Amino acid sequence: MSVDAPSVRPFLFSEVTELVSRGGGCGGCFDAEVNAEWTIGGKPNGGYLLGMMGRAAVAVGAHDHVIAASAHYLHSPVPGPVVIEATVLRAGRSASQLRARLSQDDEACVEALVTTSHLTSTDEPYWDEGLPPLSQVAYEDCTRLVPSTPDGLRVAIMGQVDVRLEPESSAFKTGRPTGTGELRGWLALPGDEGFDPSSLLFAVDAFPPATFDIEYSGWVPTLELTVYVRALPSPGPVRVLQRAQLIDGQRVDESCYVWDRTRRLVAQGSQLAGIRLG
Amino acid sequence: MSVDAPSVRPFLFSEVTELVSRGGGCGGCFDAEVNAEWTIGGKPNGGYLLGMMGRAAVAVGAHDHVIAASAHYLHSPVPGPVVIEATVLRAGRSASQLRARLSQDDEACVEALVTTSHLTSTDEPYWDEGLPPLSQVAYEDCTRLVPSTPDGLRVAIMGQVDVRLEPESSAFKTGRPTGTGELRGWLALPGDEGFDPSSLLFAVDAFPPATFDIEYSGWVPTLELTVYVRALPSPGPVRVLQRAQLIDGQRVDESCYVWDRTRRLVAQGSQLAGIRLG
Repeated sequence: MSVDAPSVRPFLFSEVTELVSRGGGCGGCFDAEVNAEWTIGGKPNGGYLLGMMGRAAVAVGAHDHVIAASAHYLHSPVPGPVVIEATVLRAGRSASQLRARLSQDDEACVEALVTTSHLTSTDEPYWDEGLPPLSQVAYEDCTRLVPSTPDGLRVAIMGQVDVRLEPESSAFKTGRPTGTGELRGWLALPGDEGFDPSSLLFAVDAFPPATFDIEYSGWVPTLELTVYVRALPSPGPVRVLQRAQLIDGQRVDESCYVWDRTRRLVAQGSQLAGIRLG
Repeated sequence: MSVDAPSVRPFLFSEVTELVSRGGGCGGCFDAEVNAEWTIGGKPNGGYLLGMMGRAAVAVGAHDHVIAASAHYLHSPVPGPVVIEATVLRAGRSASQLRARLSQDDEACVEALVTTSHLTSTDEPYWDEGLPPLSQVAYEDCTRLVPSTPDGLRVAIMGQVDVRLEPESSAFKTGRPTGTGELRGWLALPGDEGFDPSSLLFAVDAFPPATFDIEYSGWVPTLELTVYVRALPSPGPVRVLQRAQLIDGQRVDESCYVWDRTRRLVAQGSQLAGIRLG
């Protein structure tokens, strides 16, 4: 099938979130680099930044996996060097809590709180009847997004990650949104890298705003993003549902659900974002 | 109609979240007191603690209303004195971000990030079709919860706040949960105090766990709680929907929706909690 080939080389998630310990007096301080291709209109994706911060939290804390992360966005960094500082707030037996800050040129850009623990991938869920229905459309029957919006904004990140929307969720691309406020499809990382709890922090923010299925609005900047990681994902692409609930006072909330190929719910996100509607 | 009268005097939300500035070297430090009646089995309600922290954030920041708050719970304080420290991370034109910490005897209990802004109550929502359907059962047709669980745990807070469940949501009280994982009803504060953005932080955690409508499990401790305040509420009680989505790995996530008497969605919550099922 025909897809839009990226015009630049793929940058792996593990590569664009690489951390170099600063050592010295700050054990939890890392140098990192915001990649210019993981951006929307030149601004880095919020889930990508949180994924970096999740990696820092796991590197510093006593537990392997992020299970909950909440980020408040202060100021968008530009591509280039950033510093991430992770601080252990409490190291418990079954879970730890950490604080993480991402800054650039000494200006705070993102603050996050992270709870880490140990996830398993073997057990079945105990009860899952409160989840939205799982879509049945196959990966092969979805169409990859191109790296630009309907009004010509460059969305470089879509040249990196493989976001494929179901035919019904693609209506906005021709100016005819369904009005339902839902986008369904698949997500794969560059180089088909497998997902882990840190990259799932990105996955819940990878899709376009679900409001595109209501009305196109330009940039929808994330103000707050909360992610729960529920299980270790199986290898391969993940199925995503991005859903808007309420647009009020020029803000929208969106929920996101991420299932792995075994149809297990592996991550959930909720975000509050600014929107130029209403 | 007959309700269970509280055995102690009502303690208003404004009273149990009262802050006394410490002054001196710490402009954002406050003394507060966790009220022994705002507890479940002797432990304070998590939303109540976040409500205190929201008040501290508003007292310190440049904006009037909390619009987003995310808390990670480290260690449950006991009733008695606590210290809340609020720090401005960024003071913007239309919004500010703050960090808040609640500690007791120098031990960190709750860490939160808070975004504040200015909410209005006049405009209509622009789009609200992604919200769950609003229940139609009147306040008068709901039954007030008593201050104890089916297995005899004292839930002192139910002697303070007025949580009324719809008949269909009350099935768990007689050992016959519906299995839907939803609790619907009404919430009023002691003394019929009106809600504001800080008490809405409590409102999204006021109901019993929605998992009681699946299977009774004892205490369900909140690990993370995120709240979005969407509009200033009208006076009077609020309508609440508490909904479980997934129980997996001895954790459950719950969503909460809060509408005011004018049927406007005024707050949304999501939480991850521990649960002894599975």
